[in-house]
Amino acid sequence: MIFTFILLDFFAKIRLKHNAEYNQGEINMSLCKLNILPNNITLEVPKGSVLLKAIKDAGVLIDTSCAGQGVCGRCRIIVEAGEYNAETTTHLTDEEVKDGYCLACVTLIEGDMRIRIPAATQLGKEKILSGIEGEPSKIVTVGHWEISPRTKKLHLTLSAPTLDDSISDLERIHRQLKSSGYKDYRIHCSLDVLRKISETLRKQDWNITLTLVEHNSLLHIMDIEAGDVTKHRYGLAIDVGTTSVVVHLVDLINGRIVEVASSYNAQMSCGEDVISRIIYAQKGGLSELSQKVISTINQLIDKLVKQTGIGIRQLEEMVAAGNTTMMHLLLGINPQYIRREPYIPSVTFFPMIRACELGIKVNDSALLYCMPCVASYIGGDITAGVLRSEMYKDEKLTMFIDIGTNGEIVLGNSEWLVAASCSAGPAFEGGGVKCGMRAASGAIEQIRFNTKTKEPEFIKVIGDAKPVGICGSGIIDALAGLFLSGLLNSNGKINQDITSPRIRKHNNITEYVLVWADDTQNKRDIVLTEIDIDNVIRAKGAIYAGFSVLLNQIGQDFSQIDSFLIAGGLGNYLNIENAVIIGLLPDVPYDRFKYLGNSSVIGAHLALLSTKLRKDAEIIAQSITNLELSVSPGFMDEYMSALFLPHTDMNAFPTVMQLMNNTNAG
Amino acid sequence: MIFTFILLDFFAKIRLKHNAEYNQGEINMSLCKLNILPNNITLEVPKGSVLLKAIKDAGVLIDTSCAGQGVCGRCRIIVEAGEYNAETTTHLTDEEVKDGYCLACVTLIEGDMRIRIPAATQLGKEKILSGIEGEPSKIVTVGHWEISPRTKKLHLTLSAPTLDDSISDLERIHRQLKSSGYKDYRIHCSLDVLRKISETLRKQDWNITLTLVEHNSLLHIMDIEAGDVTKHRYGLAIDVGTTSVVVHLVDLINGRIVEVASSYNAQMSCGEDVISRIIYAQKGGLSELSQKVISTINQLIDKLVKQTGIGIRQLEEMVAAGNTTMMHLLLGINPQYIRREPYIPSVTFFPMIRACELGIKVNDSALLYCMPCVASYIGGDITAGVLRSEMYKDEKLTMFIDIGTNGEIVLGNSEWLVAASCSAGPAFEGGGVKCGMRAASGAIEQIRFNTKTKEPEFIKVIGDAKPVGICGSGIIDALAGLFLSGLLNSNGKINQDITSPRIRKHNNITEYVLVWADDTQNKRDIVLTEIDIDNVIRAKGAIYAGFSVLLNQIGQDFSQIDSFLIAGGLGNYLNIENAVIIGLLPDVPYDRFKYLGNSSVIGAHLALLSTKLRKDAEIIAQSITNLELSVSPGFMDEYMSALFLPHTDMNAFPTVMQLMNNTNAG
Repeated sequence: MIFTFILLDFFAKIRLKHNAEYNQGEINMSLCKLNILPNNITLEVPKGSVLLKAIKDAGVLIDTSCAGQGVCGRCRIIVEAGEYNAETTTHLTDEEVKDGYCLACVTLIEGDMRIRIPAATQLGKEKILSGIEGEPSKIVTVGHWEISPRTKKLHLTLSAPTLDDSISDLERIHRQLKSSGYKDYRIHCSLDVLRKISETLRKQDWNITLTLVEHNSLLHIMDIEAGDVTKHRYGLAIDVGTTSVVVHLVDLINGRIVEVASSYNAQMSCGEDVISRIIYAQKGGLSELSQKVISTINQLIDKLVKQTGIGIRQLEEMVAAGNTTMMHLLLGINPQYIRREPYIPSVTFFPMIRACELGIKVNDSALLYCMPCVASYIGGDITAGVLRSEMYKDEKLTMFIDIGTNGEIVLGNSEWLVAASCSAGPAFEGGGVKCGMRAASGAIEQIRFNTKTKEPEFIKVIGDAKPVGICGSGIIDALAGLFLSGLLNSNGKINQDITSPRIRKHNNITEYVLVWADDTQNKRDIVLTEIDIDNVIRAKGAIYAGFSVLLNQIGQDFSQIDSFLIAGGLGNYLNIENAVIIGLLPDVPYDRFKYLGNSSVIGAHLALLSTKLRKDAEIIAQSITNLELSVSPGFMDEYMSALFLPHTDMNAFPTVMQLMNNTNAG
Repeated sequence: MIFTFILLDFFAKIRLKHNAEYNQGEINMSLCKLNILPNNITLEVPKGSVLLKAIKDAGVLIDTSCAGQGVCGRCRIIVEAGEYNAETTTHLTDEEVKDGYCLACVTLIEGDMRIRIPAATQLGKEKILSGIEGEPSKIVTVGHWEISPRTKKLHLTLSAPTLDDSISDLERIHRQLKSSGYKDYRIHCSLDVLRKISETLRKQDWNITLTLVEHNSLLHIMDIEAGDVTKHRYGLAIDVGTTSVVVHLVDLINGRIVEVASSYNAQMSCGEDVISRIIYAQKGGLSELSQKVISTINQLIDKLVKQTGIGIRQLEEMVAAGNTTMMHLLLGINPQYIRREPYIPSVTFFPMIRACELGIKVNDSALLYCMPCVASYIGGDITAGVLRSEMYKDEKLTMFIDIGTNGEIVLGNSEWLVAASCSAGPAFEGGGVKCGMRAASGAIEQIRFNTKTKEPEFIKVIGDAKPVGICGSGIIDALAGLFLSGLLNSNGKINQDITSPRIRKHNNITEYVLVWADDTQNKRDIVLTEIDIDNVIRAKGAIYAGFSVLLNQIGQDFSQIDSFLIAGGLGNYLNIENAVIIGLLPDVPYDRFKYLGNSSVIGAHLALLSTKLRKDAEIIAQSITNLELSVSPGFMDEYMSALFLPHTDMNAFPTVMQLMNNTNAG
């Protein structure tokens, strides 16, 4: 993990110099017209502006892992016409430069321009897990528990005041509450509620509904409404992901999902992973990041409200789950110490706050509960996932795995829980891979090889279009296929003994052509280079090393684990067999693996509905022992051993050995 | 009380018609210049504007009891030049109209104008009781109690985090709190605090000071500061009066007053008494009223901060006392039901709110405690007064009296407390009296008669200037003097049998000239008319009837009362003997009367310093039985009997009888 940080910081320093120059350029206020295709948006920007910033300002989301740090090479666009000044970059071939390709982050606008954002650079309609894949009933079925949201709605009919009974409106409510089971409670209400009490009481003849929250012996009146509105109660469960945000609109009476909405996290334009977001926040972008994710949430709420006809005011509670950095950014808390040794978050157990304080458009009195985090790199999404998995109730040993830019692992049972995170890098999300892309329209999500012809024989593309790139699950398939076909050696080198037009050198780097240009959307070969493969092997090696260290620490091995639960975006589309072949997952009977889908939003959903499960979540977050892998003895050894396909210790992968033998024999 | 309401409503309806016409006039947007003297402020206003509104818009405070309802006749100004359209009014003589006098509330601006606000109309530098008259030590000495503000400041030194001890910043604070005596507390903090935790912890090497509030077993972290700042703690005690606002800046460590500031309540421009403010609020002026009193408070805070060099941030707590309507307006709560039978306030026991929510400029986390009220017309100022008086601890019977526009009476001892309010009308504040004015510069505050020559022989004017009018204490002196001199009969009629140039008729109303025009600032005779006298008698009659009914209800009489405590503005300058002579106060030995001064601010001050006394205040407010005089049997009889000087039952006033006999004999 530390290595990554140092590298990013190094690049950040280089970029700072550039930015200073760009800013000077911006002082020249002569304006240039920029036309962005295919969106066909035109805007005017000062001459000398950075193209990436202009595209962001136009509201066009494009792929930028490094948030314009000049590191990732993903923001490639095509200049169709106009004057510009682009820095040379190793991320583009001479041919591409000739064709007008630039990296938007190192290109200055020098005159009117027309640019095109190629499909692979666009942030397309990504496959976002809603948490209810294959559950059309919209009922989340995890365990047995009573529906008991944190807020209660209580309908009261008060006696009208007279000269002989002239206590104040608030005291009248208190008196009724005290005779309705809240005798020994201290009752409190906010200024907002105070200001509307007298009108509300008189609106429907002293019939009111109170929204109440208990807190030990303190009773908080969150809202007062006229009449009996106890029958319409809704809440929101939100997965605040680094990449995407998923919202469940939940009926708090019957627990069902009314509707689901999801979209990219608008913070994507400020960097693709948590580290680049933290850097962005540190450079003065904290409130921008906070506003961006809140605007995403508000847009989704807006969509849900329009689709269902449920009013904003009826949304009376919220639960959000996300990694520790996402939670800090959502609340506008500076996350900078998350990134610095000894990696300290400001907060892991979040106090309840009113959602409207953040500008979230729900009932003014709605509380936001943030799923508790464990540590800087084990967040509330993982707590939610463990809650959803029920592994904390099970006597048998379970390993919970969430693979993304960071891999998070939780191991344990009803007695103990231990967790670790490892920085896998962006390879499984298509980053650091030449033709890599997110699991969006145009991405190869499955690929199968004929081990005899050593040719790809089956390709599945998201959106059933021609491919433009390859996403995480496809990359794993490709590596496994190449390896089993003998096209790829154990050390990640392409086997040059085999003669195939698909194996070639480009800029002195050996690569394998998965799809020829003619069969792609953008008429460019889709390839895997040895550098790509190296990145993937390092990613999988880091995660597998995480598994191993965790097990070593508690003196267990993989065979003792009863089930492996795979959560997160990659998880649902992952071919388990291939993941085992490349050594990302351990070689255990396949039936021990289960997909959990978006366990973060489901966990949030459960916490929204049940006070008991919310308490469970707090116990989970408290119980989990976090292992800092970067300081764990043996991590580097395990990591080095895992930098092979599938692993240096082949005995740990008997099934893969068998498959290799079969293939060779065949 | 009811009569007054009906009358005001009647006039309000008439005015509504006028306002509609004026508003139409305002559509004509040609502008006129208005020059206001002696302030010499010039502003431009649309032709057709109401003059009073223009004066208010210019920020000039003038006397308007009825807030421009056209009822009180106090907003008299002199037009020196210009075009205008003034309605005829019985409040001005033909001569005055000839001299350019108008009522600003019924005058339309028709062209450029120059006007002068006469001294009697200006709101001058009023005598405002600071609560520490004659106590230069700035120590409030009421009983014995421990200084224990609601907030605590706790200095903590935390251990710096390491890789082996990497809990979040907030959890680190929690852990330290739990080992510092808050083991079983649930700890909470606000979003603001959350956002500054990580920076503050690292500012002075993990040395911090927390501001804490306990609430049963809930511990609220109100603020976090770097270093040890436990030695500098300040709070504010505020009397939010209908007329004026008084603020004590209090040292929370030693309990002393650091400084005092006071000024008019800026709401004065919206009406002089609570009823006209409620009407103003109902007509859409609620937020204006709220903002006005908050701006007054902020100006006073600003002044205090500048005088003392104490920072805004160090003001960590506030207690406000005021009548029920003032408290509603301060918090922006609609007070309209206070005015309508059965007279129900929205709230009497106020939840704690953050002062900054109201826009009050103190520490963001400072809480505002509002002294609890008893009923619509027995407010937190009275609770504060009873707290300050300590009568609730005394076995002997005490009567607490606060005389202003409303007279409030509390009777009782350590066993029971009963209260009543009576609408005295504005006579004791100079309202409804032709030459009446507030106790401000130029007001006659004392007047003594030579019973032989039947001429005034001693006059004391506030500010040692020539007089312009007469204020409450002077009016009482005058009535008593006129009565004892035989110039005034028991029924309030001027004795026309006596020949004196001072007794004359004007517009068919008999009046007595107190000061001849030559001896006044504004060259107008200062008179008392029979109508004035009638208004004063009705005012004192209402209050005395209040005393009587209260005593009747509990089967006691005046002789059983051990002490009479006189609070409020009038109280401190009142000549007790004269108040007894006119029958405002009962005829008991004079040494039973004590002045309490501004007991509202002192009570707030006590509640600011002591948790125990704050609890006492709540017990006081809960214990007081409020008597609604308007529905009390016998009130009307008692009132009618009290409409004489001193009373129809002369036996109740033996000392006065003696004085009358002495005078007659002499």
